[in-house]
Amino acid sequence: MNPESFFSKDIKPALQNDPPGGWMPVIPEGCIRLSSGYPDPGLVPVEELKNSVVKLLEEEKDLPLHYIGSKKADGLKGILQNLMKERHMNIKSDELLITSGACQAIDLIARVLIDDETVVAVESPTYMEALEIFQNYTSRFMTIEIDENGLRTDRLEKELKERREKGEKLPKVLYTIPTFQNPTGTTMREERREHVMKLARDYDFLVIEDDAYGEVYFNQDTRPLKSLKRGNDPRVLYIGSLSKVVAPGLRIGWVAADKEFIEALSWFKKDLDHPFSQASVSQFLYEVDWEEHYTTLRKVYREKCSLLLSELENQMPESVSWYVPQGGYFVWLKVPGVDTSKLLEKAVEEGVSYVPGKYFFLDQEEGLAYLRLSFSYENGREISEGVKRLGRLIMAQVAGR
Amino acid sequence: MNPESFFSKDIKPALQNDPPGGWMPVIPEGCIRLSSGYPDPGLVPVEELKNSVVKLLEEEKDLPLHYIGSKKADGLKGILQNLMKERHMNIKSDELLITSGACQAIDLIARVLIDDETVVAVESPTYMEALEIFQNYTSRFMTIEIDENGLRTDRLEKELKERREKGEKLPKVLYTIPTFQNPTGTTMREERREHVMKLARDYDFLVIEDDAYGEVYFNQDTRPLKSLKRGNDPRVLYIGSLSKVVAPGLRIGWVAADKEFIEALSWFKKDLDHPFSQASVSQFLYEVDWEEHYTTLRKVYREKCSLLLSELENQMPESVSWYVPQGGYFVWLKVPGVDTSKLLEKAVEEGVSYVPGKYFFLDQEEGLAYLRLSFSYENGREISEGVKRLGRLIMAQVAGR
Repeated sequence: MNPESFFSKDIKPALQNDPPGGWMPVIPEGCIRLSSGYPDPGLVPVEELKNSVVKLLEEEKDLPLHYIGSKKADGLKGILQNLMKERHMNIKSDELLITSGACQAIDLIARVLIDDETVVAVESPTYMEALEIFQNYTSRFMTIEIDENGLRTDRLEKELKERREKGEKLPKVLYTIPTFQNPTGTTMREERREHVMKLARDYDFLVIEDDAYGEVYFNQDTRPLKSLKRGNDPRVLYIGSLSKVVAPGLRIGWVAADKEFIEALSWFKKDLDHPFSQASVSQFLYEVDWEEHYTTLRKVYREKCSLLLSELENQMPESVSWYVPQGGYFVWLKVPGVDTSKLLEKAVEEGVSYVPGKYFFLDQEEGLAYLRLSFSYENGREISEGVKRLGRLIMAQVAGR
Repeated sequence: MNPESFFSKDIKPALQNDPPGGWMPVIPEGCIRLSSGYPDPGLVPVEELKNSVVKLLEEEKDLPLHYIGSKKADGLKGILQNLMKERHMNIKSDELLITSGACQAIDLIARVLIDDETVVAVESPTYMEALEIFQNYTSRFMTIEIDENGLRTDRLEKELKERREKGEKLPKVLYTIPTFQNPTGTTMREERREHVMKLARDYDFLVIEDDAYGEVYFNQDTRPLKSLKRGNDPRVLYIGSLSKVVAPGLRIGWVAADKEFIEALSWFKKDLDHPFSQASVSQFLYEVDWEEHYTTLRKVYREKCSLLLSELENQMPESVSWYVPQGGYFVWLKVPGVDTSKLLEKAVEEGVSYVPGKYFFLDQEEGLAYLRLSFSYENGREISEGVKRLGRLIMAQVAGR
């Protein structure tokens, strides 16, 4: 029996790609993890979640352990609607679908919108898991570069215009992380936000706005694309997540979109609801002092980012450059002349990890001289030590050329 | 903007079907739920799970709340391998994928195996959610009837032979619930198990074995199809679930299959792992006295089933018939001359619910005179009262003809 001979014809193109997860470095115990986009362990509300579960099960007994029936789980939608309201979005209950993290949200949206004829516009570089997912559905992409002010919407417009003039296929969707982008840490400037939405209307494409990092700002909130048109632009499929502000292991993400999209997404979401996890989170969110939680969280990441940046100033050779993020988890390094995926092996030997830049590009060659550092997970001492080790390695590489 | 105009061409056929979940009756507060395939509330280990979460978070702190890193979550696979070993299956770690319940397992398998040219063989009747899922991928089915000894493998063979002779397309997969089937409660007899696996080899199809109810036997264990050939038949994709023996709200199911299938399933499983839920369950499973838990569980369901059956004897008119299950959650009623989906409205008004038979058939007309009763969720008093109410209604219908 040959398993492959039983595969659906529809998945065969996807299986031609690299297997998913290749970007995740194998990290030995004790290695400083500047690769991991995990929250700071001190910010993960372990005690509070424990108390929430205890309280939940004392109050609701078996209800959150069945398929449905937990009022607390049902209440999660309302809480998420309120969180979005704080960020200027007015989302109705039937415009909201809770997912297992942002990844499932991206996958469901891709499943509903993208087929092998679809052109998908993406930022370059962009979130590697989104690239993996989209490539399961299509091989037709339009890549638009990013600078320190986010997506180059002038380039996007130029490319759209050219395609239209040449009668080439236009994109059906643009996937963007406008705020504290993964991996570059950049934020799309306000005029560009207006511009991209104007282009979406003029060229009739949808915008998938991945806002996983939106709440993790250091000083100033940014208005999501979804909010710009009367608090709920139907052209935007908005993806939210609690992974970066509460904890990823709870797997709580969501999509806010037009009701018809939500219905289609639900149609294919066959893992059902997750009552225990959703009710536990709901109980936690109901009790947490959000203002306090966010204030602490923003302060912690602001300080860690600032530390990372000053260590980079001290430890990196002149030729290395980076953007200064205003929020999020990441700093994106350009290391001219160095193949960062080759360097990784040495780096891990020296006890520091990062994610090589190539995984964030469709054409991986473009990313060889870049790498992503996370300041979110490790503590100050480890950040400093990690950058020191990495600096030494890069110095040696640059000197050895 | 018209959302539909953005839909993938690949999902359009699926959207022609009835929307998912139509089978779920709207049940007012206080209604006796003979519709719900939920575990008995008294068997849901609320206290034990609470203690497990507390212990887990005290021991592992933030680890189960990140993406990966929880030893407890990682340990779940080993526990499931042991559970399968108890049932005569030898499954290696790379032959096992943890899913969000059996539904996600079915969906992932469908995604990997089924395209619009695939013929899927199913039992008739069968699990309504599996039908919903398969119909998202194909409209080509072969339906094989069930009797008190499970799938009529003689009919299956006849149909296969005819198709081969006529040069018609043969099925690529058979989906079966051989043990305590949903909805009929029947179990495939041993000779038929051997027969179906022989047919799978002779006609080169795969078997998807949904064993969600396998552990819920009243008196005697049955060997899964997966176990029949040296404890691990590569032709069988085995689906397990903790929903019926621990709690569905935890969303823990799994697939045991050839490594190549598991790799392909993982490729498309984009909700990632669920570390918090998986680690909590792992902690619970590690501590629970399985023998005691199963002994109690089997006794409870045996007694509730027996009560339901004796109430049916007392309350139903002569014309109504049913199979006597040896395990599981369900009793399947044939109510000749009654349209059970029309009757449901009245039944709910009288304060008792069930699932109309039609949802378990591809050709819903075939199921009009059937209905599924669950004895799992309600207590003895409610089961008796529920059957009494339903009996009165059916009596009146039969008399009124």
